[in-house]
Amino acid sequence: MAGTDSSIKLDLGPSPVVILCEPQLGENIGTAIRAMANFGLWELRLVNPREGWPNEKAEAASTKASHVLEKVQVFERIEDAIADLSLVFATTARKRDMNKPVIGPDLAGNRMHGHIQGGQKTGLLFGRERWGLNNEEVALCDAIVTLPVEPSFASLNIAQAVLVLAYEWRRASREGEELPFSSSEGVAADKKDMVRMFEHLESSLERAGFFTVEEKRPSMVNNIRAMLGRANFNAQEVRTFRGMISSLERAHERERKGNNDKNTPAEISE
Amino acid sequence: MAGTDSSIKLDLGPSPVVILCEPQLGENIGTAIRAMANFGLWELRLVNPREGWPNEKAEAASTKASHVLEKVQVFERIEDAIADLSLVFATTARKRDMNKPVIGPDLAGNRMHGHIQGGQKTGLLFGRERWGLNNEEVALCDAIVTLPVEPSFASLNIAQAVLVLAYEWRRASREGEELPFSSSEGVAADKKDMVRMFEHLESSLERAGFFTVEEKRPSMVNNIRAMLGRANFNAQEVRTFRGMISSLERAHERERKGNNDKNTPAEISE
Repeated sequence: MAGTDSSIKLDLGPSPVVILCEPQLGENIGTAIRAMANFGLWELRLVNPREGWPNEKAEAASTKASHVLEKVQVFERIEDAIADLSLVFATTARKRDMNKPVIGPDLAGNRMHGHIQGGQKTGLLFGRERWGLNNEEVALCDAIVTLPVEPSFASLNIAQAVLVLAYEWRRASREGEELPFSSSEGVAADKKDMVRMFEHLESSLERAGFFTVEEKRPSMVNNIRAMLGRANFNAQEVRTFRGMISSLERAHERERKGNNDKNTPAEISE
Repeated sequence: MAGTDSSIKLDLGPSPVVILCEPQLGENIGTAIRAMANFGLWELRLVNPREGWPNEKAEAASTKASHVLEKVQVFERIEDAIADLSLVFATTARKRDMNKPVIGPDLAGNRMHGHIQGGQKTGLLFGRERWGLNNEEVALCDAIVTLPVEPSFASLNIAQAVLVLAYEWRRASREGEELPFSSSEGVAADKKDMVRMFEHLESSLERAGFFTVEEKRPSMVNNIRAMLGRANFNAQEVRTFRGMISSLERAHERERKGNNDKNTPAEISE
Protein backbone atom coordinates (compact mmCIF):
# COMPACT_ATOMS: atom_id res chain seq x y z
CA MET A 1 0.00 0.00 0.00
CA ALA A 2 1.70 3.14 -1.19
CA GLY A 3 0.69 6.50 0.22
CA THR A 4 3.49 7.80 2.44
CA ASP A 5 3.42 11.56 2.74
CA SER A 6 7.02 12.50 3.48
CA SER A 7 6.13 16.16 3.87
CA ILE A 8 4.45 15.35 7.19
CA LYS A 9 6.70 15.60 10.22
CA LEU A 10 7.13 12.45 12.28
CA ASP A 11 5.46 12.38 15.67
CA LEU A 12 7.94 10.91 18.15
CA GLY A 13 5.67 11.25 21.15
CA PRO A 14 5.56 8.69 23.96
CA SER A 15 4.85 5.21 22.63
CA PRO A 16 5.56 1.62 23.70
CA VAL A 17 9.17 0.44 23.64
CA VAL A 18 9.78 -2.73 21.60
CA ILE A 19 12.34 -5.18 23.03
CA LEU A 20 13.57 -8.00 20.81
CA CYS A 21 15.24 -10.75 22.81
CA GLU A 22 18.19 -12.36 20.98
CA PRO A 23 16.88 -11.79 17.45
CA GLN A 24 18.63 -14.16 15.07
CA LEU A 25 18.26 -12.52 11.65
CA GLY A 26 18.98 -8.90 10.76
CA GLU A 27 16.22 -8.96 8.16
CA ASN A 28 13.65 -9.71 10.86
CA ILE A 29 14.88 -6.75 12.91
CA GLY A 30 14.48 -4.57 9.83
CA THR A 31 10.94 -5.70 9.05
CA ALA A 32 10.02 -5.25 12.72
CA ILE A 33 11.37 -1.67 12.50
CA ARG A 34 9.21 -1.02 9.45
CA ALA A 35 6.14 -2.37 11.29
CA MET A 36 6.92 -0.13 14.28
CA ALA A 37 7.31 2.93 12.05
CA ASN A 38 4.00 2.21 10.28
CA PHE A 39 2.10 2.66 13.53
CA GLY A 40 4.19 5.38 15.14
CA LEU A 41 6.51 3.38 17.43
CA TRP A 42 10.15 4.40 17.38
CA GLU A 43 12.01 3.05 20.45
CA LEU A 44 13.67 -0.34 19.79
CA ARG A 45 15.95 -2.24 22.18
CA LEU A 46 17.86 -5.35 21.20
CA VAL A 47 19.10 -7.92 23.69
CA ASN A 48 22.15 -9.75 22.28
CA PRO A 49 21.31 -9.67 18.56
CA ARG A 50 23.05 -12.75 17.11
CA GLU A 51 24.47 -10.95 14.08
CA GLY A 52 25.59 -7.92 16.11
CA TRP A 53 24.59 -4.29 15.63
CA PRO A 54 24.53 -2.24 13.40
CA ASN A 55 23.38 -4.70 10.77
CA GLU A 56 23.17 -4.01 7.02
CA LYS A 57 20.33 -6.45 6.36
CA ALA A 58 18.27 -4.83 9.09
CA GLU A 59 18.88 -1.42 7.57
CA ALA A 60 17.83 -2.59 4.11
CA ALA A 61 14.66 -4.28 5.37
CA SER A 62 13.62 -1.28 7.46
CA THR A 63 12.80 0.70 4.29
CA LYS A 64 14.38 3.96 5.40
CA ALA A 65 12.90 4.16 8.89
CA SER A 66 16.02 6.03 9.95
CA HIS A 67 14.26 7.69 12.89
CA VAL A 68 13.95 4.21 14.46
CA LEU A 69 17.26 2.78 13.22
CA GLU A 70 19.31 5.64 14.64
CA LYS A 71 17.90 5.22 18.12
CA VAL A 72 18.27 1.43 18.51
CA GLN A 73 19.86 0.50 21.84
CA VAL A 74 21.68 -2.79 22.47
CA PHE A 75 21.72 -4.58 25.84
CA GLU A 76 23.40 -7.68 27.19
CA ARG A 77 20.77 -8.46 29.78
CA ILE A 78 17.01 -8.38 29.42
CA GLU A 79 16.75 -6.99 32.97
CA ASP A 80 18.64 -3.89 31.83
CA ALA A 81 16.60 -3.54 28.65
CA ILE A 82 13.36 -3.25 30.66
CA ALA A 83 14.77 -1.52 33.76
CA ASP A 84 13.05 1.85 33.24
CA LEU A 85 9.67 0.42 32.18
CA SER A 86 6.80 -0.12 34.61
CA LEU A 87 4.48 -2.21 32.44
CA VAL A 88 5.92 -4.90 30.19
CA PHE A 89 4.00 -7.49 28.16
CA ALA A 90 5.59 -10.74 27.02
CA THR A 91 4.29 -11.88 23.63
CA THR A 92 4.07 -15.61 23.23
CA ALA A 93 2.02 -18.20 21.38
CA ARG A 94 2.78 -20.95 23.90
CA LYS A 95 0.99 -21.63 27.16
CA ARG A 96 3.22 -21.25 30.23
CA ASP A 97 3.06 -23.01 33.54
CA MET A 98 2.96 -19.84 35.55
CA ASN A 99 0.24 -17.71 37.01
CA LYS A 100 0.44 -14.69 34.73
CA PRO A 101 -2.59 -12.94 33.28
CA VAL A 102 -3.04 -13.82 29.59
CA ILE A 103 -4.62 -11.07 27.49
CA GLY A 104 -5.31 -10.34 23.82
CA PRO A 105 -3.71 -7.57 21.74
CA ASP A 106 -6.73 -5.27 22.05
CA LEU A 107 -6.64 -5.20 25.85
CA ALA A 108 -2.84 -4.87 25.71
CA GLY A 109 -3.24 -1.86 23.42
CA ASN A 110 -5.71 -0.24 25.80
CA ARG A 111 -3.54 -0.88 28.85
CA MET A 112 -0.40 0.46 27.18
CA HIS A 113 -2.27 3.56 26.10
CA GLY A 114 -3.62 4.18 29.61
CA HIS A 115 -0.19 3.63 31.09
CA ILE A 116 1.45 6.10 28.72
CA GLN A 117 -1.31 8.63 29.35
CA GLY A 118 -0.46 8.34 33.03
CA GLY A 119 3.07 9.45 32.21
CA GLN A 120 4.63 6.01 32.58
CA LYS A 121 6.76 3.88 30.27
CA THR A 122 5.63 0.58 28.80
CA GLY A 123 7.19 -2.07 26.61
CA LEU A 124 6.53 -5.15 24.50
CA LEU A 125 8.93 -8.08 24.73
CA PHE A 126 9.30 -10.42 21.75
CA GLY A 127 11.27 -13.68 21.73
CA ARG A 128 13.66 -15.42 19.39
CA GLU A 129 12.51 -16.52 15.93
CA ARG A 130 13.12 -20.19 16.72
CA TRP A 131 11.84 -20.73 20.22
CA GLY A 132 10.41 -17.50 21.57
CA LEU A 133 10.93 -16.51 25.20
CA ASN A 134 12.15 -18.64 28.10
CA ASN A 135 9.97 -18.91 31.19
CA GLU A 136 12.48 -16.81 33.17
CA GLU A 137 12.05 -14.02 30.63
CA VAL A 138 8.27 -14.25 30.69
CA ALA A 139 8.40 -14.15 34.50
CA LEU A 140 9.96 -10.66 34.34
CA CYS A 141 6.84 -9.30 32.62
CA ASP A 142 3.48 -8.15 33.97
CA ALA A 143 1.31 -10.21 31.67
CA ILE A 144 1.35 -12.46 28.64
CA VAL A 145 -0.10 -11.23 25.35
CA THR A 146 -1.17 -13.83 22.86
CA LEU A 147 -2.85 -13.38 19.49
CA PRO A 148 -6.20 -14.91 18.53
CA VAL A 149 -4.54 -17.08 15.89
CA GLU A 150 -5.74 -20.27 14.25
CA PRO A 151 -4.28 -22.86 16.67
CA SER A 152 -3.19 -25.17 13.87
CA PHE A 153 -1.26 -22.36 12.16
CA ALA A 154 -0.09 -20.18 15.03
CA SER A 155 3.43 -19.23 14.01
CA LEU A 156 3.76 -15.53 13.18
CA ASN A 157 7.06 -13.98 12.24
CA ILE A 158 8.35 -11.30 14.57
CA ALA A 159 7.51 -8.35 12.32
CA GLN A 160 3.92 -9.53 12.08
CA ALA A 161 3.57 -9.96 15.84
CA VAL A 162 5.08 -6.47 16.29
CA LEU A 163 2.66 -5.13 13.66
CA VAL A 164 -0.49 -6.39 15.38
CA LEU A 165 0.56 -5.07 18.79
CA ALA A 166 1.72 -1.73 17.37
CA TYR A 167 -1.58 -1.47 15.48
CA GLU A 168 -3.59 -2.15 18.64
CA TRP A 169 -1.71 0.51 20.61
CA ARG A 170 -2.25 2.95 17.76
CA ARG A 171 -5.93 2.08 17.59
CA ALA A 172 -6.34 2.61 21.34
CA SER A 173 -4.40 5.86 21.36
CA ARG A 174 -6.27 7.30 18.36
CA GLU A 175 -9.73 6.21 19.48
CA GLY A 176 -12.25 8.62 18.02
CA GLU A 177 -9.64 10.41 15.94
CA GLU A 178 -9.77 10.54 12.20
CA LEU A 179 -8.17 8.04 9.85
CA PRO A 180 -5.26 9.31 7.73
CA PHE A 181 -7.84 10.34 5.15
CA SER A 182 -11.60 10.24 4.85
CA SER A 183 -14.13 10.15 2.07
CA SER A 184 -13.59 12.79 -0.63
CA GLU A 185 -17.13 14.07 -0.99
CA GLY A 186 -18.89 12.66 1.98
CA VAL A 187 -21.30 15.52 2.65
CA ALA A 188 -24.81 14.32 1.91
CA ALA A 189 -27.14 16.51 -0.13
CA ASP A 190 -29.85 18.52 1.62
CA LYS A 191 -33.19 16.79 1.90
CA LYS A 192 -34.89 19.47 -0.21
CA ASP A 193 -32.53 18.63 -3.10
CA MET A 194 -33.22 14.95 -2.65
CA VAL A 195 -36.98 15.51 -2.67
CA ARG A 196 -36.73 17.64 -5.84
CA MET A 197 -34.69 14.91 -7.44
CA PHE A 198 -37.25 12.27 -6.50
CA GLU A 199 -40.09 14.44 -7.81
CA HIS A 200 -38.20 15.00 -11.03
CA LEU A 201 -37.68 11.26 -11.43
CA GLU A 202 -41.26 10.40 -10.54
CA SER A 203 -42.82 12.92 -12.91
CA SER A 204 -40.55 11.64 -15.63
CA LEU A 205 -41.57 8.06 -14.90
CA GLU A 206 -45.21 9.17 -14.84
CA ARG A 207 -44.94 10.60 -18.33
CA ALA A 208 -43.12 7.50 -19.52
CA GLY A 209 -46.02 5.34 -18.36
CA PHE A 210 -43.96 3.54 -15.70
CA PHE A 211 -46.77 3.50 -13.12
CA THR A 212 -49.21 1.19 -14.87
CA VAL A 213 -51.32 0.36 -11.81
CA GLU A 214 -52.34 3.54 -10.04
CA GLU A 215 -52.98 1.95 -6.59
CA LYS A 216 -49.45 0.55 -6.55
CA ARG A 217 -47.95 3.96 -7.22
CA PRO A 218 -47.43 5.09 -3.59
CA SER A 219 -45.60 1.93 -2.54
CA MET A 220 -43.51 1.96 -5.71
CA VAL A 221 -42.53 5.57 -5.05
CA ASN A 222 -41.59 4.70 -1.49
CA ASN A 223 -39.47 1.79 -2.65
CA ILE A 224 -37.67 3.91 -5.24
CA ARG A 225 -37.00 6.65 -2.68
CA ALA A 226 -35.69 4.13 -0.14
CA MET A 227 -33.51 2.41 -2.70
CA LEU A 228 -31.90 5.58 -4.01
CA GLY A 229 -31.81 7.19 -0.58
CA ARG A 230 -29.44 4.53 0.69
CA ALA A 231 -26.80 5.78 -1.74
CA ASN A 232 -26.38 9.02 0.23
CA PHE A 233 -25.91 11.22 -2.82
CA ASN A 234 -24.04 14.47 -2.30
CA ALA A 235 -25.14 17.71 -4.00
CA GLN A 236 -23.05 17.08 -7.12
CA GLU A 237 -24.36 13.54 -7.42
CA VAL A 238 -27.94 14.83 -7.18
CA ARG A 239 -27.18 17.13 -10.12
CA THR A 240 -25.60 14.24 -12.04
CA PHE A 241 -28.61 12.03 -11.42
CA ARG A 242 -31.06 14.73 -12.49
CA GLY A 243 -28.94 15.24 -15.60
CA MET A 244 -29.29 11.54 -16.33
CA ILE A 245 -33.09 11.76 -16.00
CA SER A 246 -33.28 14.78 -18.27
CA SER A 247 -31.07 13.07 -20.79
CA LEU A 248 -33.28 9.99 -20.81
CA GLU A 249 -36.36 12.19 -21.24
CA ARG A 250 -34.80 13.91 -24.22
CA ALA A 251 -33.74 10.59 -25.71
CA HIS A 252 -37.37 9.53 -25.57
CA GLU A 253 -38.38 12.70 -27.41
CA ARG A 254 -35.64 12.10 -29.97
CA GLU A 255 -36.85 8.58 -30.56
CA ARG A 256 -40.30 9.86 -31.32
CA LYS A 257 -38.85 12.41 -33.70
CA GLY A 258 -37.01 9.59 -35.47
CA ASN A 259 -33.57 11.02 -34.65
CA ASN A 260 -30.70 8.77 -35.64
CA ASP A 261 -27.80 10.17 -33.65
CA LYS A 262 -24.78 8.15 -32.61
CA ASN A 263 -26.35 7.69 -29.17
CA THR A 264 -29.41 5.79 -30.18
CA PRO A 265 -32.23 5.62 -27.65
CA ALA A 266 -31.73 1.88 -27.30
CA GLU A 267 -28.20 2.40 -26.03
CA ILE A 268 -29.06 5.18 -23.63
CA SER A 269 -32.03 3.49 -22.07
CA GLU A 270 -30.17 0.23 -21.63
CA MET B 1 6.25 -16.78 17.92
CA ALA B 2 6.35 -20.56 17.91
CA GLY B 3 3.37 -22.49 19.22
CA THR B 4 1.60 -24.16 16.31
CA ASP B 5 -0.35 -27.21 17.39
CA SER B 6 -0.48 -29.37 14.28
CA SER B 7 -2.67 -31.93 16.00
CA ILE B 8 -5.58 -29.49 15.83
CA LYS B 9 -7.75 -29.80 12.75
CA LEU B 10 -8.00 -26.71 10.55
CA ASP B 11 -11.29 -24.86 10.58
CA LEU B 12 -12.16 -23.98 6.97
CA GLY B 13 -15.46 -22.32 7.79
CA PRO B 14 -16.77 -19.26 5.95
CA SER B 15 -14.25 -16.41 6.04
CA PRO B 16 -13.39 -13.40 3.90
CA VAL B 17 -11.90 -14.04 0.44
CA VAL B 18 -8.59 -12.27 -0.21
CA ILE B 19 -8.07 -10.93 -3.74
CA LEU B 20 -4.59 -9.76 -4.77
CA CYS B 21 -4.67 -7.59 -7.85
CA GLU B 22 -1.63 -8.13 -10.13
CA PRO B 23 0.81 -9.08 -7.37
CA GLN B 24 4.35 -8.60 -8.62
CA LEU B 25 6.46 -10.88 -6.41
CA GLY B 26 5.80 -14.51 -5.54
CA GLU B 27 7.33 -14.03 -2.13
CA ASN B 28 4.71 -11.43 -1.25
CA ILE B 29 1.94 -13.84 -2.26
CA GLY B 30 3.52 -16.43 0.03
CA THR B 31 3.80 -14.14 3.06
CA ALA B 32 0.22 -12.98 2.45
CA ILE B 33 -0.85 -16.65 2.48
CA ARG B 34 0.93 -17.17 5.79
CA ALA B 35 -0.81 -14.10 7.27
CA MET B 36 -4.18 -15.41 6.04
CA ALA B 37 -3.53 -18.84 7.56
CA ASN B 38 -2.54 -17.30 10.91
CA PHE B 39 -5.99 -15.84 11.35
CA GLY B 40 -8.05 -18.58 9.72
CA LEU B 41 -8.55 -17.20 6.18
CA TRP B 42 -8.06 -19.71 3.38
CA GLU B 43 -9.60 -18.46 0.12
CA LEU B 44 -7.12 -16.57 -2.07
CA ARG B 45 -7.74 -15.26 -5.59
CA LEU B 46 -5.03 -13.79 -7.79
CA VAL B 47 -5.71 -11.41 -10.67
CA ASN B 48 -2.92 -11.67 -13.27
CA PRO B 49 0.03 -12.51 -10.98
CA ARG B 50 3.08 -11.14 -12.81
CA GLU B 51 5.23 -14.23 -12.25
CA GLY B 52 2.41 -16.65 -13.11
CA TRP B 53 0.98 -19.40 -10.97
CA PRO B 54 1.96 -21.77 -9.35
CA ASN B 55 5.04 -20.01 -8.03
CA GLU B 56 7.89 -21.63 -6.11
CA LYS B 57 8.82 -18.54 -4.13
CA ALA B 58 5.23 -18.12 -3.00
CA GLU B 59 5.17 -21.73 -1.87
CA ALA B 60 8.41 -21.34 0.11
CA ALA B 61 7.28 -18.13 1.80
CA SER B 62 3.87 -19.53 2.74
CA THR B 63 5.51 -21.81 5.36
CA LYS B 64 3.49 -24.89 4.55
CA ALA B 65 0.04 -23.32 4.44
CA SER B 66 -0.92 -25.98 1.89
CA HIS B 67 -4.61 -25.68 2.72
CA VAL B 68 -4.49 -22.14 1.27
CA LEU B 69 -1.97 -22.81 -1.51
CA GLU B 70 -3.94 -25.69 -2.97
CA LYS B 71 -7.10 -23.63 -3.32
CA VAL B 72 -5.65 -20.51 -4.95
CA GLN B 73 -7.68 -19.40 -7.98
CA VAL B 74 -6.30 -17.27 -10.80
CA PHE B 75 -8.40 -14.75 -12.78
CA GLU B 76 -7.75 -12.48 -15.74
CA ARG B 77 -10.28 -9.84 -14.77
CA ILE B 78 -10.94 -8.34 -11.36
CA GLU B 79 -14.68 -8.31 -12.17
CA ASP B 80 -14.61 -12.11 -12.39
CA ALA B 81 -12.57 -12.46 -9.22
CA ILE B 82 -15.22 -10.65 -7.17
CA ALA B 83 -18.29 -11.78 -9.13
CA ASP B 84 -19.78 -14.03 -6.41
CA LEU B 85 -19.09 -11.63 -3.51
CA SER B 86 -21.67 -9.15 -2.20
CA LEU B 87 -19.45 -7.00 0.05
CA VAL B 88 -15.95 -6.09 -1.09
CA PHE B 89 -13.56 -3.68 0.59
CA ALA B 90 -10.72 -2.01 -1.28
CA THR B 91 -7.64 -1.49 0.86
CA THR B 92 -5.69 1.63 0.08
CA ALA B 93 -3.46 4.14 1.81
CA ARG B 94 -4.23 6.89 -0.70
CA LYS B 95 -7.15 9.28 -0.73
CA ARG B 96 -9.39 8.88 -3.79
CA ASP B 97 -11.49 11.46 -5.54
CA MET B 98 -14.64 9.46 -5.31
CA ASN B 99 -17.55 9.32 -2.95
CA LYS B 100 -16.88 5.98 -1.26
CA PRO B 101 -17.19 5.44 2.48
CA VAL B 102 -13.73 5.23 4.12
CA ILE B 103 -13.55 2.99 7.17
CA GLY B 104 -10.92 1.55 9.51
CA PRO B 105 -9.96 -2.13 9.82
CA ASP B 106 -12.00 -2.61 13.01
CA LEU B 107 -15.27 -1.56 11.38
CA ALA B 108 -14.34 -3.56 8.27
CA GLY B 109 -13.81 -6.63 10.49
CA ASN B 110 -17.20 -6.15 12.12
CA ARG B 111 -18.99 -5.64 8.82
CA MET B 112 -17.36 -8.68 7.20
CA HIS B 113 -18.29 -10.79 10.21
CA GLY B 114 -21.91 -9.63 10.11
CA HIS B 115 -22.07 -10.26 6.39
CA ILE B 116 -20.73 -13.80 6.72
CA GLN B 117 -23.09 -14.49 9.61
CA GLY B 118 -25.91 -13.48 7.27
CA GLY B 119 -24.82 -16.25 4.91
CA GLN B 120 -23.21 -13.95 2.35
CA LYS B 121 -19.72 -13.82 0.84
CA THR B 122 -17.29 -10.98 1.40
CA GLY B 123 -13.83 -10.13 0.15
CA LEU B 124 -10.82 -7.89 0.65
CA LEU B 125 -9.10 -6.44 -2.40
CA PHE B 126 -5.41 -5.54 -2.23
CA GLY B 127 -3.45 -3.68 -4.89
CA ARG B 128 -0.05 -4.01 -6.52
CA GLU B 129 3.11 -3.61 -4.44
CA ARG B 130 4.22 -0.57 -6.42
CA TRP B 131 1.15 1.51 -6.92
CA GLY B 132 -1.82 -0.16 -5.25
CA LEU B 133 -5.23 -0.10 -6.90
CA ASN B 134 -6.47 2.03 -9.80
CA ASN B 135 -9.54 4.18 -9.27
CA GLU B 136 -11.54 1.91 -11.61
CA GLU B 137 -10.72 -1.03 -9.35
CA VAL B 138 -11.63 0.89 -6.18
CA ALA B 139 -14.92 1.90 -7.82
CA LEU B 140 -15.94 -1.79 -8.04
CA CYS B 141 -15.86 -2.07 -4.24
CA ASP B 142 -18.38 -1.10 -1.56
CA ALA B 143 -16.03 0.90 0.63
CA ILE B 144 -12.41 1.84 1.15
CA VAL B 145 -10.52 0.44 4.13
CA THR B 146 -7.48 2.35 5.27
CA LEU B 147 -5.21 1.68 8.24
CA PRO B 148 -4.53 4.19 11.04
CA VAL B 149 -0.89 4.45 10.04
CA GLU B 150 1.65 7.15 10.77
CA PRO B 151 1.07 9.43 7.73
CA SER B 152 4.79 10.04 7.25
CA PHE B 153 5.49 6.27 7.14
CA ALA B 154 2.35 4.82 5.63
CA SER B 155 3.70 2.13 3.31
CA LEU B 156 2.85 -1.40 4.49
CA ASN B 157 3.79 -4.45 2.53
CA ILE B 158 0.90 -6.59 1.28
CA ALA B 159 1.32 -9.37 3.83
CA GLN B 160 1.15 -6.85 6.65
CA ALA B 161 -1.98 -5.18 5.28
CA VAL B 162 -3.54 -8.65 4.86
CA LEU B 163 -2.49 -9.51 8.43
CA VAL B 164 -4.20 -6.51 10.04
CA LEU B 165 -7.45 -7.05 8.14
CA ALA B 166 -7.43 -10.80 8.76
CA TYR B 167 -6.75 -10.12 12.43
CA GLU B 168 -9.67 -7.70 12.67
CA TRP B 169 -12.07 -10.15 11.05
CA ARG B 170 -10.84 -12.85 13.43
CA ARG B 171 -11.25 -10.52 16.40
CA ALA B 172 -14.81 -9.62 15.37
CA SER B 173 -15.77 -13.22 14.69
CA ARG B 174 -14.31 -14.52 17.97
CA GLU B 175 -15.66 -11.71 20.13
CA GLY B 176 -16.12 -13.06 23.63
CA GLU B 177 -14.46 -16.36 22.81
CA GLU B 178 -11.32 -17.56 24.50
CA LEU B 179 -7.81 -16.89 23.33
CA PRO B 180 -5.82 -19.93 22.07
CA PHE B 181 -4.69 -20.41 25.66
CA SER B 182 -5.34 -18.74 28.98
CA SER B 183 -3.54 -18.39 32.26
CA SER B 184 -2.26 -21.68 33.70
CA GLU B 185 -3.48 -21.31 37.24
CA GLY B 186 -5.83 -18.43 37.02
CA VAL B 187 -8.35 -19.57 39.62
CA ALA B 188 -8.15 -17.21 42.56
CA ALA B 189 -8.06 -18.64 46.07
CA ASP B 190 -11.22 -18.64 48.21
CA LYS B 191 -11.64 -15.60 50.40
CA LYS B 192 -11.53 -17.76 53.55
CA ASP B 193 -8.04 -18.96 52.56
CA MET B 194 -6.97 -15.39 51.88
CA VAL B 195 -8.27 -14.22 55.27
CA ARG B 196 -6.47 -17.07 57.07
CA MET B 197 -3.30 -16.15 55.23
CA PHE B 198 -3.65 -12.51 56.24
CA GLU B 199 -4.33 -13.48 59.86
CA HIS B 200 -1.31 -15.76 59.81
CA LEU B 201 0.87 -12.95 58.49
CA GLU B 202 -0.53 -10.36 60.89
CA SER B 203 -0.09 -12.53 63.99
CA SER B 204 3.42 -13.26 62.88
CA LEU B 205 4.14 -9.56 62.39
CA GLU B 206 2.51 -8.88 65.77
CA ARG B 207 4.90 -11.25 67.51
CA ALA B 208 7.84 -9.78 65.57
CA GLY B 209 6.96 -6.33 66.92
CA PHE B 210 6.11 -4.93 63.50
CA PHE B 211 3.15 -2.89 64.75
CA THR B 212 4.95 -0.39 66.95
CA VAL B 213 2.13 2.17 67.14
CA GLU B 214 -1.12 0.46 68.15
CA GLU B 215 -3.48 3.12 66.72
CA LYS B 216 -1.88 2.77 63.28
CA ARG B 217 -2.40 -0.98 63.28
CA PRO B 218 -5.85 -1.08 61.56
CA SER B 219 -4.78 1.10 58.64
CA MET B 220 -1.50 -0.80 58.26
CA VAL B 221 -3.40 -4.08 58.17
CA ASN B 222 -5.75 -2.68 55.54
CA ASN B 223 -2.85 -1.51 53.42
CA ILE B 224 -1.09 -4.87 53.62
CA ARG B 225 -4.29 -6.73 52.72
CA ALA B 226 -4.93 -4.40 49.76
CA MET B 227 -1.36 -4.68 48.55
CA LEU B 228 -1.22 -8.48 48.64
CA GLY B 229 -4.82 -8.84 47.55
CA ARG B 230 -4.02 -7.26 44.21
CA ALA B 231 -1.78 -10.22 43.37
CA ASN B 232 -4.81 -12.55 43.09
CA PHE B 233 -3.07 -15.53 44.68
CA ASN B 234 -4.43 -18.95 43.79
CA ALA B 235 -4.75 -21.71 46.40
CA GLN B 236 -1.24 -23.04 45.81
CA GLU B 237 0.24 -19.56 46.04
CA VAL B 238 -1.55 -18.99 49.36
CA ARG B 239 0.12 -22.13 50.66
CA THR B 240 3.49 -20.97 49.31
CA PHE B 241 3.09 -17.58 50.95
CA ARG B 242 2.10 -19.11 54.28
CA GLY B 243 5.11 -21.39 54.01
CA MET B 244 7.29 -18.32 53.55
CA ILE B 245 5.83 -16.72 56.70
CA SER B 246 6.34 -19.91 58.72
CA SER B 247 9.87 -20.17 57.46
CA LEU B 248 10.63 -16.59 58.47
CA GLU B 249 9.13 -17.24 61.90
CA ARG B 250 11.33 -20.27 62.39
CA ALA B 251 14.40 -18.38 61.20
CA HIS B 252 13.71 -15.85 63.92
CA GLU B 253 13.58 -18.64 66.49
CA ARG B 254 16.80 -20.07 65.11
CA GLU B 255 18.51 -16.74 65.43
CA ARG B 256 17.56 -16.54 69.08
CA LYS B 257 18.86 -20.08 69.61
CA GLY B 258 22.16 -19.02 68.08
CA ASN B 259 21.89 -21.51 65.21
CA ASN B 260 24.66 -21.15 62.65
CA ASP B 261 23.25 -23.04 59.66
CA LYS B 262 24.19 -22.25 56.09
CA ASN B 263 21.00 -20.21 55.77
CA THR B 264 21.75 -17.56 58.30
CA PRO B 265 18.83 -15.45 59.50
CA ALA B 266 20.30 -12.40 57.82
CA GLU B 267 20.05 -14.06 54.41
CA ILE B 268 16.55 -15.40 54.89
CA SER B 269 15.05 -12.18 56.16
CA GLU B 270 16.68 -10.16 53.41
